[in-house]
Amino acid sequence: MRFFPDRGEVHFLDQRLLPADEKTLVCKTVDELVQAMREMVVRGAPAIGVSAAYGCCLAVREASGSVGETWRAVLPTLLDHLMNARPTAVNLAWAVNRLKGLWTGAMEHEELYAVWTQAALALHQEDIEANMAMGWHGAELLDDGDTVMTHCNAGALATGGYGTALGVIRAAVTKGKKITVVANETRPLLQGARLTAYELDKDRIPVRVACDNACSALMSKGLIHKVVVGADRIAANGDTANKIGTMGVAILAQHHGIPFYVAAPCSTLDPNTATGDGIDIEQRAIGEVRSCMGVPTAPVGVEAFNPAFDVTPAAFISAIVTERGILKAPFLKSIAVALGGGELR
Amino acid sequence: MRFFPDRGEVHFLDQRLLPADEKTLVCKTVDELVQAMREMVVRGAPAIGVSAAYGCCLAVREASGSVGETWRAVLPTLLDHLMNARPTAVNLAWAVNRLKGLWTGAMEHEELYAVWTQAALALHQEDIEANMAMGWHGAELLDDGDTVMTHCNAGALATGGYGTALGVIRAAVTKGKKITVVANETRPLLQGARLTAYELDKDRIPVRVACDNACSALMSKGLIHKVVVGADRIAANGDTANKIGTMGVAILAQHHGIPFYVAAPCSTLDPNTATGDGIDIEQRAIGEVRSCMGVPTAPVGVEAFNPAFDVTPAAFISAIVTERGILKAPFLKSIAVALGGGELR
Repeated sequence: MRFFPDRGEVHFLDQRLLPADEKTLVCKTVDELVQAMREMVVRGAPAIGVSAAYGCCLAVREASGSVGETWRAVLPTLLDHLMNARPTAVNLAWAVNRLKGLWTGAMEHEELYAVWTQAALALHQEDIEANMAMGWHGAELLDDGDTVMTHCNAGALATGGYGTALGVIRAAVTKGKKITVVANETRPLLQGARLTAYELDKDRIPVRVACDNACSALMSKGLIHKVVVGADRIAANGDTANKIGTMGVAILAQHHGIPFYVAAPCSTLDPNTATGDGIDIEQRAIGEVRSCMGVPTAPVGVEAFNPAFDVTPAAFISAIVTERGILKAPFLKSIAVALGGGELR
Repeated sequence: MRFFPDRGEVHFLDQRLLPADEKTLVCKTVDELVQAMREMVVRGAPAIGVSAAYGCCLAVREASGSVGETWRAVLPTLLDHLMNARPTAVNLAWAVNRLKGLWTGAMEHEELYAVWTQAALALHQEDIEANMAMGWHGAELLDDGDTVMTHCNAGALATGGYGTALGVIRAAVTKGKKITVVANETRPLLQGARLTAYELDKDRIPVRVACDNACSALMSKGLIHKVVVGADRIAANGDTANKIGTMGVAILAQHHGIPFYVAAPCSTLDPNTATGDGIDIEQRAIGEVRSCMGVPTAPVGVEAFNPAFDVTPAAFISAIVTERGILKAPFLKSIAVALGGGELR
């Protein structure tokens, strides 16, 4: 994604159309950005965080052009709209709150726009650097010759760039390790088949797509050595919300004796949520489940479930890879240390 | 499915087109029938068994019209072709061998056709009766108000009629129990979303479709009370081959404390295969995984896995429902008793 401050535009590679089409979608208003997030033009917790930061910039520009009310009165409403785009990824609120903290009452909108633009660009850059640091730490967990399963897309497309789970894989490959990836296709929106396979294929990292339900069979045959996934929110005790299906992969990994790693920047750690029970799980439109790539797959009108995320209990997580190092159980302690800026190892 | 002996035709409701279209596909030759099985016009172990029995009839008719060789020389080749249509469901070989046992050397082809036609029609009728008996036994395992998860389609469409797993559900509903079904969509070919939802919807049994990867989340929320699935082959020790994903559902069910039942006729029990390790798992074309409903879902040329079945270890199976009663662990013993015609309880 890219922000053009002079034009007040955020440009996204429209992920709904990948891998078939590479088209850019331009957002000029907060509502356009909110719709882009809701409709999965851009998705993935870190990418949502960066988008939200740019959204704050769009908000101040939009507020400054408002008629009838002062921009100071309009801006909070726009920021609330942005905050409510999607409920599960904590990075959204984290990014908006970080920028809000820079807003002092005396600023004129031109100054605020300049301040937020700098802050958003910095946040984007930090996200990429965090991914690269995460990759550097996490690469140690992967061995030469490993086949690594990942679920959904936690790659460059889900972040400011480089990726969390895929960042770990990219870093291991950069270090000269031969890694093969198994990408769970990740119904209903197929981010694994469409996006993870697309990213890795472009990078010439060997990847094989599998239906989500093949997970246990592949593990039982010894075909999977490690699992690495991203995260949308990690509670204070290590319980991790991530794309629907992650919990099942984690439980099956433990059953089959396979290490299960989460890779996420510290912006995904949520010390204000004690356990996974406190994480709000987005329920998306059931039409996504009753169809695939726009084609109906079930009888008209049949009911369906469509939780977008699930929560993996901390007990199934072997380690959490962050930009500050690798967190191990007990996570309550290691997460607090990471957030406090302490030494992890 | 329906066999027309006078015309030498087997008619199938083409399951590839459901639920959108209800079209009949007619098979007049063994090869047409083999292709129909391979391309999933008809699928499900018991339905494959019945189809194969009708296929034997087509074979003798086809052999009798052969030029250059005697029908007695041609018939075994046609039966071999039939036997090799698909590898995993034991019902295929079971049905063909049953009919082969009725072929004595002295018979003329007209007589063999008449004998096999009667035998095939009887086998079809027995399959339906077995399903109903299975339903009657299995219904006791379900409680009024239960929500039952099923995987793939083990319904009327997968059998001679009525269904195995769905037969158990239908019988429970007939007995006045209120049952709600969660149908896992079952990628890649979506037999759950397309066929199970279609069948139950027609019967006005409440059904909700879920993506395969939502299984653990739904179980963890207490939304699933029981799991009932069908089977393609059950080894002597109870290890059960069924549609890919079943093993994961079973392991997750045990993790979440949910009973996991298999419903299958005795024709699916394979005493000649000691354990699940001996079951040949069909690997299907990877194009099925790289697309959905004919629409590409992954980058062109990307690799994929497509095992059509997996094997659930007996330790994860709470009971096996057969037409002769409910088999409990140790399955090595209870399966032997069932096959020996003994009293189960």
